[in-house]
Amino acid sequence: MKLATVRTPDGPRVVVDVNGSVRGLHEFTSLPHAIRAGVLSRPDDFEGSQIDDPAGLDFAPVVTDPGKVICVGHNYREHILEMGHGLPDFPNVFSKFTGALIGAFDDIELAAESTAWDWEAELAVVVGRPLRNADASQARTAIGGYTVANDISARDWQKRTSQWLLGKTFERTTPVGPWLVTPDAFSDELDLAITCSVDGDIVQQSNVSDLLFDPAYILAYLSTVITLEPGDLILTGTPSGVGAARDPQLFLQPGQEVRTEISGIGQCINRCVAADHLTSSI
Amino acid sequence: MKLATVRTPDGPRVVVDVNGSVRGLHEFTSLPHAIRAGVLSRPDDFEGSQIDDPAGLDFAPVVTDPGKVICVGHNYREHILEMGHGLPDFPNVFSKFTGALIGAFDDIELAAESTAWDWEAELAVVVGRPLRNADASQARTAIGGYTVANDISARDWQKRTSQWLLGKTFERTTPVGPWLVTPDAFSDELDLAITCSVDGDIVQQSNVSDLLFDPAYILAYLSTVITLEPGDLILTGTPSGVGAARDPQLFLQPGQEVRTEISGIGQCINRCVAADHLTSSI
Repeated sequence: MKLATVRTPDGPRVVVDVNGSVRGLHEFTSLPHAIRAGVLSRPDDFEGSQIDDPAGLDFAPVVTDPGKVICVGHNYREHILEMGHGLPDFPNVFSKFTGALIGAFDDIELAAESTAWDWEAELAVVVGRPLRNADASQARTAIGGYTVANDISARDWQKRTSQWLLGKTFERTTPVGPWLVTPDAFSDELDLAITCSVDGDIVQQSNVSDLLFDPAYILAYLSTVITLEPGDLILTGTPSGVGAARDPQLFLQPGQEVRTEISGIGQCINRCVAADHLTSSI
Repeated sequence: MKLATVRTPDGPRVVVDVNGSVRGLHEFTSLPHAIRAGVLSRPDDFEGSQIDDPAGLDFAPVVTDPGKVICVGHNYREHILEMGHGLPDFPNVFSKFTGALIGAFDDIELAAESTAWDWEAELAVVVGRPLRNADASQARTAIGGYTVANDISARDWQKRTSQWLLGKTFERTTPVGPWLVTPDAFSDELDLAITCSVDGDIVQQSNVSDLLFDPAYILAYLSTVITLEPGDLILTGTPSGVGAARDPQLFLQPGQEVRTEISGIGQCINRCVAADHLTSSI
């Protein structure tokens, strides 16, 4: 099963794809609400209208209103080791604000305040049920589904101070979607190719199986500190190949196209544009 | 004027204090909604019932549902210099999740997962109107009010990795309130004593005038990256005297009382208790 949030003339609506039959669920303007109502386990219980042309859907972020957006850094073994670091004992966790999220085919808005826009292809997880103080096996059952994200980062802002938040949460920079694919489509051991390309050149190529802390472990770990809620969005980290680690460094420019793909889940295709707001005096 | 969110048998409600006359505004269950409706500028336009015994109010976090909770680290000059650091060029910004917030007189729940619970008395700001790409003078007009907070921190979790988030966002640890005091009560140059005491011993004592980046500067800076929205909550940093910087270090224990006060704004009084949930296996 797959779920998405799409834009309609009446506002955002949740759509569900069960074995290729795509329906719009009129009563749900928000994926967290749909998950709480039971759509993940009983999709046919909810009224919907058949969508004959899914290719014409206008995808919003797969979750438009997550209660939390949580991100993990330094989580692919190969990337950590090639950078000369030892493997960490704990996930390195930060957050971003909801305003950063865009749909799978929306433009990435590069603000003029940064001159170091970088890519980070990531597997993302949407939480399917509340979770607190869970072990990894309990946490596995709380995974609502998987989707594709790119944690586009303003490296200059990220590195200004010790805390990365502002470099990670510029508005309209983080594509996520198009579909949330439920875990029944995969084995517990995720073996999924993840790639990022810029204007057709592959810049990141790895496999989700190289994750040091896998999604179930991350959810369990987070649940030690906070209650995870349906719709919470978790980005699990990026493999090697980011522009800041190259010599010379390579950053995104307006006009370029970023394609982020995970096999069996889907792809985001996003054009970079110059953000059109006025620059600040600070 | 002062505003608060209180718990009632019908759920949370906003209350307003205009020159000592306290009224409950039935239609507002949320401070951000009340601010958007215009309560800050026209409090008398909204129906309310007189509250004859304000001392009996049960204070929720002053904002129960902020869209964003944003925090600034390393922001008191004296504290930075005594730690041997140079003055930073930019605010060091991180976040916490809403689940961390508690009311001004609620218990602080110390989870057994940490053995290094520390205090951080802070001036907090609630945003009064949307703000994007503002300068400091514009940002000043977007300050909805000031309140008192304590950014209680699990130092061991904060320092596990480079990113502080998990040590800052344990559930039910961050008192904020009781009242939001509107800026007309103060001059632009804030000259307010800030203190924290534990079981009656003063552990932090400073003045908000020692802030390196003042609230208007912080709001303007943040607005370069994100749109600030009514109800967003911003903690502006803590002065010297935290337990982790002492020799020997000193941390909070269940049974202790933390009192956080800012002159002209108010005080939070919170008892520390052991969190009663099961500890995790991780």
